[in-house]
Amino acid sequence: MTLKIHYASGSPWAWRVMLGLAYKGLAFEAQEIHFSKGDSQTPEFLVLNPHGQVPVLQDGDFTLYESSAILVYLDRKYPENPLFGSSAEDNGLIWQRLLEMQNHLFPVLRGAVLPIMTGTYDENKDAVHTEYSKVPAELAKLEIWLGDKDYFFSDGISAIDITLYPMLALMQRLLASPPAEVLDSSVILPLANKYPKLAAWMQRIEAMPRFDEVYPTHWQ
Amino acid sequence: MTLKIHYASGSPWAWRVMLGLAYKGLAFEAQEIHFSKGDSQTPEFLVLNPHGQVPVLQDGDFTLYESSAILVYLDRKYPENPLFGSSAEDNGLIWQRLLEMQNHLFPVLRGAVLPIMTGTYDENKDAVHTEYSKVPAELAKLEIWLGDKDYFFSDGISAIDITLYPMLALMQRLLASPPAEVLDSSVILPLANKYPKLAAWMQRIEAMPRFDEVYPTHWQ
Repeated sequence: MTLKIHYASGSPWAWRVMLGLAYKGLAFEAQEIHFSKGDSQTPEFLVLNPHGQVPVLQDGDFTLYESSAILVYLDRKYPENPLFGSSAEDNGLIWQRLLEMQNHLFPVLRGAVLPIMTGTYDENKDAVHTEYSKVPAELAKLEIWLGDKDYFFSDGISAIDITLYPMLALMQRLLASPPAEVLDSSVILPLANKYPKLAAWMQRIEAMPRFDEVYPTHWQ
Repeated sequence: MTLKIHYASGSPWAWRVMLGLAYKGLAFEAQEIHFSKGDSQTPEFLVLNPHGQVPVLQDGDFTLYESSAILVYLDRKYPENPLFGSSAEDNGLIWQRLLEMQNHLFPVLRGAVLPIMTGTYDENKDAVHTEYSKVPAELAKLEIWLGDKDYFFSDGISAIDITLYPMLALMQRLLASPPAEVLDSSVILPLANKYPKLAAWMQRIEAMPRFDEVYPTHWQ
């Protein structure tokens, strides 16, 4: 059986799955697609995922989309180096954090940076600044969640870490880009000054084995 | 150990957990809270869930919030009558559907009916009608997903069914209420004419053992 992942370079959703594969020590084939070339709308791709989104996992004949569903599948199929804990309680608590981030942090990040990424800042100016004003409090919450632990759930990597990291890396990269000049990045960056625990945690993730292997190709 | 669930009557998030408890044959104590009385903002409640939301589960000394995290926990702790399948593949596919609903169907339902529920229709008129216009296609997709099966995943109940049912029941109820007169309910209702498979599936859920026990108290 060969594991194959369809990804787009820089997609935080695909990246989290690739970090998960790397952490679990699983070999995989990476198939890059380019949205700009229409790769996600070909009949062949839409059979794999009718939404035309990445990531898509193929494990032999089995196909799955939705990044968190893929992580759940991989963790149950290949139990070594668990991403969702080893007990019912840990599994529940890891999902609690994942859903909290999904419901609170990610919509704020999305609202603050997506219009800038997609060149629709002018139409969404007020909303962008409203959402961006919420980012510091959300990052402060992460700093508290992290506390003195090495990783978000415990002293080992979990699905929380690999889900969060690509979102924050993308935010940092975007804030440093010219179109983001409309946002005052100094309220957040440098992360090492404002949120030292978060910055140290990011460095820990970056020191993971195989981190470089799954780093977005066009960021290198 | 006593299982205790904190809920608000009519909350689709609390209701899904109570349906899960009922389906799994687990006895539980139900503690009703009233948002209008400020129950969710007491210091005691905020210790259980800092977001002041329901549901919250207490299983002895263990506390958990976020409805889907609670379902994951219950399913792993009490494996009888599984909600997330019995294999890695089924687990992944059930999560795939849950996340698809979360990312596509639920935002549309929320955008269409929430402003009407909360009396903010006038400020959100355009968005409400835009989102409402997407509901028929989303329901048609559910009809296709259901196909000739009795339930969404297979011929047995899964987390998909108990997550979806309360959302649709709430939508139906709201569409029949006076404030929803601004929406043309005839494009969707009666469900039995427009979406017969979905309507038959709802009846199957309503025939579940203990369905009446977890039915929203103030709807009776």
